Parts: sequence; C-alpha cells; structure tokens
Amino acid sequence: AKSDRRKKVVGALKAAWPHVKLFIILVIYSMFGAVGFWLIEYPHETALVANFTEARTQLLKDMWNVSQVFTGGDWTEEMTILVERYEHTILAAYDGGIDPRGVTGGQAELQWDVAGSLFFSVTVFTTIGYGHQTPATVAGRVFCIFYAIFGIPILLLTLADIGELLARGLRYIAATVNSKLRPNMMESRKDDVPLYGIFIVVFLVMSLGALVMMQMEDWTFEQAFYFIFVTFSTIGFGDLVPRHKMYSLAASLYFLLGMALISTSFSLSQDEVGRLLKKWGDLKASCKK
Amino acid sequence: AKSDRRKKVVGALKAAWPHVKLFIILVIYSMFGAVGFWLIEYPHETALVANFTEARTQLLKDMWNVSQVFTGGDWTEEMTILVERYEHTILAAYDGGIDPRGVTGGQAELQWDVAGSLFFSVTVFTTIGYGHQTPATVAGRVFCIFYAIFGIPILLLTLADIGELLARGLRYIAATVNSKLRPNMMESRKDDVPLYGIFIVVFLVMSLGALVMMQMEDWTFEQAFYFIFVTFSTIGFGDLVPRHKMYSLAASLYFLLGMALISTSFSLSQDEVGRLLKKWGDLKASCKK
Ligand SMILES: [K+]
Ligand SMILES: [K+]
Repeated sequence: AKSDRRKKVVGALKAAWPHVKLFIILVIYSMFGAVGFWLIEYPHETALVANFTEARTQLLKDMWNVSQVFTGGDWTEEMTILVERYEHTILAAYDGGIDPRGVTGGQAELQWDVAGSLFFSVTVFTTIGYGHQTPATVAGRVFCIFYAIFGIPILLLTLADIGELLARGLRYIAATVNSKLRPNMMESRKDDVPLYGIFIVVFLVMSLGALVMMQMEDWTFEQAFYFIFVTFSTIGFGDLVPRHKMYSLAASLYFLLGMALISTSFSLSQDEVGRLLKKWGDLKASCKK
Repeated sequence: AKSDRRKKVVGALKAAWPHVKLFIILVIYSMFGAVGFWLIEYPHETALVANFTEARTQLLKDMWNVSQVFTGGDWTEEMTILVERYEHTILAAYDGGIDPRGVTGGQAELQWDVAGSLFFSVTVFTTIGYGHQTPATVAGRVFCIFYAIFGIPILLLTLADIGELLARGLRYIAATVNSKLRPNMMESRKDDVPLYGIFIVVFLVMSLGALVMMQMEDWTFEQAFYFIFVTFSTIGFGDLVPRHKMYSLAASLYFLLGMALISTSFSLSQDEVGRLLKKWGDLKASCKK
C-alpha cells in the first residue's frame, strides 16, 4: 500500500513537471533580466541623483541672490521665474527616471537596485509596462527590446499552459453543476462553460485579490480593483504601482493566473463578437432577399 | 467590357467589406470613448488646474514671509523646507493628471479635451496603456474598465483579421521567391513562411516607421525605433509619447498593421519555443534510456 501511494505521488509530480518547468524557466529569465538591467541602469541612475542634488543646491543659491537684490513686485517676478524653472528641473528629473521625493539630504532611494530591476523585467515580458521606471540609457533600451523579443513568447507559452489547466478545471465544475441541476442535458454538452460563467470566476478572483491588496497598499477597494484590472488586462497604466514590489513578485502565481483567466475571457469574447457580426451580416443579407 | 470592369470593382468592394466593417466599428468605438472620457474627466481636470495655480501663489507668499523674517543659515533651512514641500505639490499634481509645465499665467493645456480623450481611448482597447494620462475620477475608472472589457475583444478580432490578410500576403511572397530560387522544392511547402522571414518584415516595417517618426517628433532614430517597438509589443511604457496625437491617430492603420505583425511573430515564436522545450524533454528522456 505504501509503495502504491509513492507511485501515485511520483506520477502526480511527473504530470506536474512540464507545467512547473515553464514556471522555473520564467523565474530564471526574470533573474537574468534583473541582473542585466541592474548592471546597465544602476550606475546611470546614481549619476542622475548627484546631478539633481546639485540643481537643488543651485536653486537655493539663486534664491538667496534674488532676495539680496530685489524687493516687492520685482522679487515676486524673479522668484516666479526661478520656481517655474525649477519645476522643469524636477519634472525632467522625474521623466528621466529619478523621483525627487526620494532624494533628501544626499540620500536617495534608487529604483534600479536588483529588486527594482527584477520587478521591471516582469513588466517587460508580461507587456504590462507600468512605466513607473524605464531604461534611461541607449544600452538599457536595446537590452529591453531583445529581452522582450525572447521573453514575451515564453510568457505567452506559460499563459497558454495555465489557460489550458484552467479550462480543464472550469469544464469539470460545469460538468458537476450541470449533472446536478440539469440531469436531462445532453451528456456531450454538460461540460460547456458559458461565457458569463468565466466572467463570474474572473470577477471573484479579482475581488479576492483586491481585498488583499487594499490591506497591503492602503488603497480603497475601488483603487485595488482598478489596479488589478489594469494589470490583468496588461494595460498597465502605472498610475497605481504597488509600493512593496517584492511581495508583488511573491504573488506572481496569482498574477499569472489572473492574466491567463482574463486573456482566455477576452479571446472567448472575441469569438462571440465575431459570431454576432457574422449573424448580423447574414440577417441583413436575408432581409435583402 | 465596361460592365465587366464594374462587376470586378463591385466584387472587390464586397470582398473588402468585412475587413473595412471591423475598422469602422473600431473608429466608432473610439469616438464613443472620446466623448465618454471627455464628459467625465474634463471638468475634474479644470478644477485640478485651478487648485495647482493657487498652490503656486501660496508658495510665493510663503517665500516672501520667510525672506522677511529669516537670514543666513535659517533662511536656507526654511527655504529648503518650502522647496521640498513644493516638490511634493508639483509631483502630486503631475501624478494626479496635470502637467505643471503646461500651467502658466492662469492658462493651461488640458489633456482631457476631445482629442486627448480619443487618443487615451485607443491606448485602452489596444492595452498599450501609455499612462501619460489616466482617469483621475472613480467614474472615469469604472467607465475605463467597461470600455476595456468590450473594446479589447473588438481589437483582438480586428488584429486577427489583419493578421490573416498579412499571412496570405507573406505566403504569396514566399511562394514567388521559392518558385524562382528553389524550383525543386516540394510544391506544397513553397508557401511556408520561415520565422526569420517574418522578423525581417517586422524589422523593415518598424524601421520605416521610425524614420518617419524621428522627423515628426524630433527624436533620434534609436528613440523612434524604441517607441515603435514599445507600442507594437503593447508594452506601452509611456516614457516617450508622440506630442502630436492627432497624426498618430491618422497613422492608426500603420499601428494596427504593426501590432498584428508583431503579435503574429510572438505567437509563432511561442510555438517555436514550445517545440524546442518538447524536443529538449524528449532528448533527455531518450538519453536516460
Ligand atoms: K501595456
Ligand atoms: K503600459
């Protein structure tokens, strides 16, 4: 009996291996990206921070000089020029890839440390592309293009694999539900999963995730749900990005599951829209006759 | 002969209609989005700009007060506090959806006018999601989610349609080339398009686009090529966004073509990676025996 159980476990592991293998490849590829982007972008970012610190010191000097020379309306005019110019400096630094809010007293939180580079790599091959941090060097951009060219197909393969497992699970649920509720249904159609069924599953998975994320990130439910939708659909605006990137990576299985679910729903909806358009065309044709 | 030609034209138009129809639906859906987001987001943005103008006036008042009271090291310390606080105001306004550089002398360039809303709508249903402008209201976010749910399947259908036309074109080119260069090839395999052939086509299409865009946007070739790759792959970082959004929309056929090409290449690469992994697995298995 014991060796029977062992055989079963070994059999299950063997069956799971092809799926686990894809996931491991993805993890290795992420780490490769992390090291690559870190090597390319980190030194550049350090230099940017130094430049920005200098610009801030310069502003204070300029303001001091203005205050020594001008008063009244002239003072306001000169100061307005300095302030508006400084706005350009801040936003150029921000667009250039550093966050001035993180630079105080010579200390800076750098985005392109290994953890940040790892999170960035994931946003590339998933095509989410939050854009909260982007390569600022030519080398980084070239690396990014090649990283995407090889990474996106690997991710698509993984998502297709997860999607197939999900479809199996959903068909099993549909068969169980239909056997109980509609015993007269044709046996061969019992495991058909209706489109609205998938949308209900998607909605539940997203709501659960939103409940967890609103705790972790101090977001409202609405914000968390919006963030998860924008992520799963791979739109990835980047207006909301998790502060704690490492646990987001820890939750990567959840994110992969969600992306697979939503891309399945979208391609099923695509078929549905295609059918509707065809029906509509046929209807118009038959009306003409 | 004349009626023959007319028949041919009518036949061609009839054959083109299903493809044109999809494109028209996409255009109508974009306009619907433009009006929707404009109605929801434009008033909110106007209010934000007013608030920001007030914050700037307040800063100048505070600086004036500091300059009346403090000198030397104290002055520098107080001013540093004001400047760092103002950095937060500017970046919060920027993250909140307005660009302080566009707000001068009470005048502001608003993002959510109809043209901006139109461009934004396109970044939603293509899942590009540059994030250069994002809904700042709850209503806008809810509308955005529903807009994506219906829009993405419509786009996927259009891309699949374009992809099929492209595949037909590529097979025709392959057949022509192979007939000339490899007359001994099996007839049934003459129209096989090799993966590297598609990548060459993708590279040419992207390079041509980059040459045009570097003129229009004052970008370097490297920037334009990077922008086009990031767009076609639907990563959409948003670190580079065309200044002139309307001609980008005018070039939408080019963008649709590029997205269809790249998504075809990625799914073909996905199959290739899957085959490689399987081969590798089989090899290991046969080595063990
Ligand atoms: K994206
Ligand atoms: K994006």
